[in-house]
Amino acid sequence: MSLKAYRLLQEVDTVVGYSTYVDLVTEILAPEQETISTGMGTEVKRCKKAIKLAQQGLEVALVSSGDSGVYGMAGLVLELVEKEASDISVEIIPGITAANAAAASLGAPLMHDYTVISLSDLLTPWAVIKKRLIKAAEGDFITALYNPKSKQRVKQIEEARQIFLQQRSAETPVGIVRSAKRGAEEIEITTLEQMLEFEINMLTTVIIGNSDTYSAQDLMITPRGYQV
Amino acid sequence: MSLKAYRLLQEVDTVVGYSTYVDLVTEILAPEQETISTGMGTEVKRCKKAIKLAQQGLEVALVSSGDSGVYGMAGLVLELVEKEASDISVEIIPGITAANAAAASLGAPLMHDYTVISLSDLLTPWAVIKKRLIKAAEGDFITALYNPKSKQRVKQIEEARQIFLQQRSAETPVGIVRSAKRGAEEIEITTLEQMLEFEINMLTTVIIGNSDTYSAQDLMITPRGYQV
Repeated sequence: MSLKAYRLLQEVDTVVGYSTYVDLVTEILAPEQETISTGMGTEVKRCKKAIKLAQQGLEVALVSSGDSGVYGMAGLVLELVEKEASDISVEIIPGITAANAAAASLGAPLMHDYTVISLSDLLTPWAVIKKRLIKAAEGDFITALYNPKSKQRVKQIEEARQIFLQQRSAETPVGIVRSAKRGAEEIEITTLEQMLEFEINMLTTVIIGNSDTYSAQDLMITPRGYQV
Repeated sequence: MSLKAYRLLQEVDTVVGYSTYVDLVTEILAPEQETISTGMGTEVKRCKKAIKLAQQGLEVALVSSGDSGVYGMAGLVLELVEKEASDISVEIIPGITAANAAAASLGAPLMHDYTVISLSDLLTPWAVIKKRLIKAAEGDFITALYNPKSKQRVKQIEEARQIFLQQRSAETPVGIVRSAKRGAEEIEITTLEQMLEFEINMLTTVIIGNSDTYSAQDLMITPRGYQV
C-alpha cells in the first residue's frame, strides 16, 4: 500500500469496498470509521453507494486491491460521476497492481516491454482477449495474466498457453504467484511446458517471460540489455 | 512510495541510486544514513557498488523511481548477484510504476488490457520496439509509452503516433503526464491527432487510449464494460 493511501484511509469517514478488500484494511482504521462491504457482482451498486455518501458530505474511500485504476473501481466511479455530472471531488490514488507486486516476488521479470491481460470474459468477449494474447505473443511482450482461472472458467488459461507456445519456446519461464504480497503468498517458477501442473486460481497472477527471460536461483529475470 | 519502501529506507545503512532519485528521498533519511549518488549511464557500476557494500555487511537500499522492476535497477542487480553467485540477500520492493501513477492523474485510462513500451533504443533495437508498437496498436491495447523523447531522440514518438493512427481514430484520447506524482506534475489530455503539439520529454509518460477510451470533464476514462 502506498503511504498516501495509508494516510488517507485513516482520515476518511467511511470506507466502501468489496468485502475481502475492506477486511484487508480494517486493522488500520479507527473504531469511529464506518465500513461498508458489498459482495462480488455488486460493483455498480457499490460505486453508487460511495458517490451518494460523498454527495451527503462524507469523505469516502472506495478501496480496490492492487491499483484501483487497473480492472478496479476507479473507472466505474469516474464513469458514474461523469454521467451524473455530479460535483463531488474524486481523487484516484495509484497503487501497486498485481503484475508489479508478483514480479517483485519472482525477481525481475517485467524489466522490458510488457502487457497486462485479464482472462475474464465476463465483461469482454473471448475473441477480443484471444486476439490480444496473439498480439502479445507475437510482439515478444512479457505478459501478466490476471483472473487466469476460476471454478467456472478453466479453458482460457489452457488456450492462452497454446497461443504463447506457438511463438515461444516451451522452456520460456513462467511465474505463478498466488496472493501476491499478502500473508499467504505462494510462488512457483516453471515453464510454458509445465505451467498447468501448478494451482492457478482467481487470486493468481501468471507472468510469462519474453524470449530473453531466464530463471536461475529461484529467480525469474528479464535482462534489460546492459552488458554485465 | 509504498509504506514498506518508506520504512525500509529509514532502516538501511546506505542509500545508493541515480542522483535525481537519491535527491527525492534524502528528506526522509536520518543524518547518519549515507547516500551514494551516481550519474546517468553508470548503472552497472552503481549496482556493483551496492552489491559490494552489502557484501561488506551493510544494509543497502538501491533506489529507482517508480517501480524498480520496470526498466529500473531490480533486474540488473539480480543479474549481477546471480552471475557472481553472491550470497547476499536481495529483496525487491515493488513500487508504483509511471504508467499507473500517470493513469491516476489522468482519471482511469488503464482500466482494460494494456501494454508498457519504452521508446528508448539505447539498449533495444528500434526494429524490436517498432514491432511491439504495431502489435500493441493491432491488439487495441491501451499503451503507456516510457522515455518517449529526449534531446537526441525525437523521431520515435512521431513514428509511434503514425503506427497507432493506422489502427485507431485520430480522435483517440492521449494523456500526457510530465513528472507524474512529483511536485511539478503537468497533465494534458489530447488526441492522437494533436499529441505532438504538447511538450514531451524524458520525464513524460504518454498514455494512448484503446478504441473505447473517452475523455470528459478533464478526465481520460476507459470503460471496463459495466452497464452504467
